[in-house]
Amino acid sequence: MPVVIVEMWEGRTVEQKRQLAEGITEAFSKIGVPPEALHIIMKDNPKHNWAIAGKLASDAK
Amino acid sequence: MPVVIVEMWEGRTVEQKRQLAEGITEAFSKIGVPPEALHIIMKDNPKHNWAIAGKLASDAK
Amino acid sequence: MPVVIVEMWEGRTVEQKRQLAEGITEAFSKIGVPPEALHIIMKDNPKHNWAIAGKLASDAK
Amino acid sequence: MPVVIVEMWEGRTVEQKRQLAEGITEAFSKIGVPPEALHIIMKDNPKHNWAIAGKLASDAK
Amino acid sequence: MPVVIVEMWEGRTVEQKRQLAEGITEAFSKIGVPPEALHIIMKDNPKHNWAIAGKLASDAK
Amino acid sequence: MPVVIVEMWEGRTVEQKRQLAEGITEAFSKIGVPPEALHIIMKDNPKHNWAIAGKLASDAK
Repeated sequence: MPVVIVEMWEGRTVEQKRQLAEGITEAFSKIGVPPEALHIIMKDNPKHNWAIAGKLASDAK
Repeated sequence: MPVVIVEMWEGRTVEQKRQLAEGITEAFSKIGVPPEALHIIMKDNPKHNWAIAGKLASDAK
Repeated sequence: MPVVIVEMWEGRTVEQKRQLAEGITEAFSKIGVPPEALHIIMKDNPKHNWAIAGKLASDAK
Repeated sequence: MPVVIVEMWEGRTVEQKRQLAEGITEAFSKIGVPPEALHIIMKDNPKHNWAIAGKLASDAK
Repeated sequence: MPVVIVEMWEGRTVEQKRQLAEGITEAFSKIGVPPEALHIIMKDNPKHNWAIAGKLASDAK
Repeated sequence: MPVVIVEMWEGRTVEQKRQLAEGITEAFSKIGVPPEALHIIMKDNPKHNWAIAGKLASDAK
């Protein structure tokens, strides 16, 4: 019954999320997790809410 | 000092969230957690950001 | 299909977790979420991994 | 720079986690995320800390 | 490679997030974590999605 | 009432966590968050539960 939470930058299309969900589900399937047992929650984060190396991603050149 | 994070589909009304917060708080109260020690954070997730069985919930019939 | 994550201090008994799971599920049920659609994940955190007001809970008198 | 958090029951072997990490990374790679930008954090949860349908997974027959 | 997730009420300005990112990064730096290894993800939560003491923060006087 | 969740590798000492809690709290204090309103939860993750670039951190040379 795994639950997967994906934190990423906003901007992915629904089609990309669709592909991602399929690919992640396949990865779990290979270690024996049935697809219907898997929940995936994708989070779209604005770049001004994400910092790397102490700087907001929206400030990075 | 528990913190509860609720991941759900968007669409719940504020009144439903109000009821949910009361009910969860009561559940903790029964095991000895004082209401004022409990934080609950509710997350509204679009259905196209949530996948079950490898399919986006927005694609499910 | 909500997912609930509970962050709390370690030390709750399995019986308390059982009661908590029942109570939280009932709270969701009241706003129309069927019990079998609800996943609850409880996390036992050592007090030295939890800080309030800038102090580890294990250091608080 | 996605971050993936996997909540699952304890009991997966390191080899299974290795396969899972490869598969998830490949899924992101297909939508254009370079492998080195992806962090995956896997969480092993005891069954008595996970409830479905109001019952601890450790209590389920 | 720490990942920090900040759950807070919406309303912080980008400038406040910038300062926060710098300060948190500095705090990690003091215990030996290089800035470029640190990811910080900030979440803006509406007050009607956050409850304390069983009440939505948006309902509190 | 922010809540901060820190995901890091296991191995930090309690003294390092103490310093980290102080530093993070100070960073919030500078943007107007009173120390007593801040909860910080630190998570110690085994390296075999953390993957970067598709490889478990425990496998990296």
